[in-house]
Amino acid sequence: MAEQESMTLILFSGDLDKALAAFNLANTGAAMGMRVDIFFTFWGLSVIEKGRHFDRGRKSPMQYMMGLMNGGGATSRKLSKMNMGGVGTRTMKGLMKRFKMPSLTEGIAIAREQGVRFIACTTSMAIMGLEEKDFIDEVDEFAGAATYLALATKAEVSLFI
Amino acid sequence: MAEQESMTLILFSGDLDKALAAFNLANTGAAMGMRVDIFFTFWGLSVIEKGRHFDRGRKSPMQYMMGLMNGGGATSRKLSKMNMGGVGTRTMKGLMKRFKMPSLTEGIAIAREQGVRFIACTTSMAIMGLEEKDFIDEVDEFAGAATYLALATKAEVSLFI
Amino acid sequence: MAEQESMTLILFSGDLDKALAAFNLANTGAAMGMRVDIFFTFWGLSVIEKGRHFDRGRKSPMQYMMGLMNGGGATSRKLSKMNMGGVGTRTMKGLMKRFKMPSLTEGIAIAREQGVRFIACTTSMAIMGLEEKDFIDEVDEFAGAATYLALATKAEVSLFI
Repeated sequence: MAEQESMTLILFSGDLDKALAAFNLANTGAAMGMRVDIFFTFWGLSVIEKGRHFDRGRKSPMQYMMGLMNGGGATSRKLSKMNMGGVGTRTMKGLMKRFKMPSLTEGIAIAREQGVRFIACTTSMAIMGLEEKDFIDEVDEFAGAATYLALATKAEVSLFI
Repeated sequence: MAEQESMTLILFSGDLDKALAAFNLANTGAAMGMRVDIFFTFWGLSVIEKGRHFDRGRKSPMQYMMGLMNGGGATSRKLSKMNMGGVGTRTMKGLMKRFKMPSLTEGIAIAREQGVRFIACTTSMAIMGLEEKDFIDEVDEFAGAATYLALATKAEVSLFI
Repeated sequence: MAEQESMTLILFSGDLDKALAAFNLANTGAAMGMRVDIFFTFWGLSVIEKGRHFDRGRKSPMQYMMGLMNGGGATSRKLSKMNMGGVGTRTMKGLMKRFKMPSLTEGIAIAREQGVRFIACTTSMAIMGLEEKDFIDEVDEFAGAATYLALATKAEVSLFI
């Protein structure tokens, strides 16, 4: 029996357009029978955050500030270009709705239904001042670059987005 | 006989510097005997657009606006950084000319001569409000992520630019 | 005996966050026994520059200007987002120090100790107006895309950062 093909995506960017591209690739790959792992790192962590969290908790002032700056959650992502104070992002969201394309939130749900695995990068989490409880429940694993590389060396396709 | 090696590039960016990097890789690979497919998606579609098109046609107001914002054509691409109102882009173009390096337009022509294949992403086209007639004649195929992944899983090198 | 696994990274970006991600991947891979080659191109060249160099030498006015704009050296890299006049970059550097994570300069040193190879892209050097003497001594090779592709086609993982 042929081995299952696989793809690993590093989602470094927290921009809406790049996140949509990542989930389009991930969901298409999963639909084709591939194993897909997404490694969320740096700004990409914001895509799987629970949403903006102002809880101060045990965070240091520096971590609190990074949390504020990063401003998480899938629904608050913006275009990398042409955001124009939100007009560009809203225009694109409108077109996507009209063409019945999945929003980012829907893309995440489809990915989970199809078994796409979510890994949150622990190194970036520390830098960004984020803890496990700041993420949506769908995260499969909290791990570092070694876990990613063990998957990537076996994968047919690996992309840094 | 050894199988032909291949490379797939996703050109997501519409920035001049990233497009030049993509065509440098593509043309070098093709010169080395590799099969090269470039999958133009999102802002990268602007690189193979016919040029700024103000024709309203059957476009919705939203699609028209996205078309205006994206502002296509290889000659109007700008640097991702240090554009400085066009000064940086012009300076770089001057240096490239002086060192007899191919411009982006020349890079596209060389790619075509060498058989590099151009695929325009249909999903992004809908989001950006673009139709087949908006693109240069050199596009080989209009297709989605499944077509890309079928190529990428067979390729030795796949990059997201 | 199994062949050594390998990874090639194109570091196109000169942003602090992306450079840190590249060195985290490179150093983790090298620690796992992989051969790692980093191909520094375009803005990424700034990471291995000796530092801001105002020496005019035989540079043309255009090359001089590109040199000024690019502003090299590992210690002067900034975040791609949320730099906020330096506050974001300083905040992140503070958190990294607190969590005892290697700075970019330390990441470069660790990479060298582990045998990660540094290749500077000669095509980009000409465009940016840079010469061999502008780089740190740790560069192994000055070469173009053909050298990169010869490595990438043999590598298990290749990423464009």
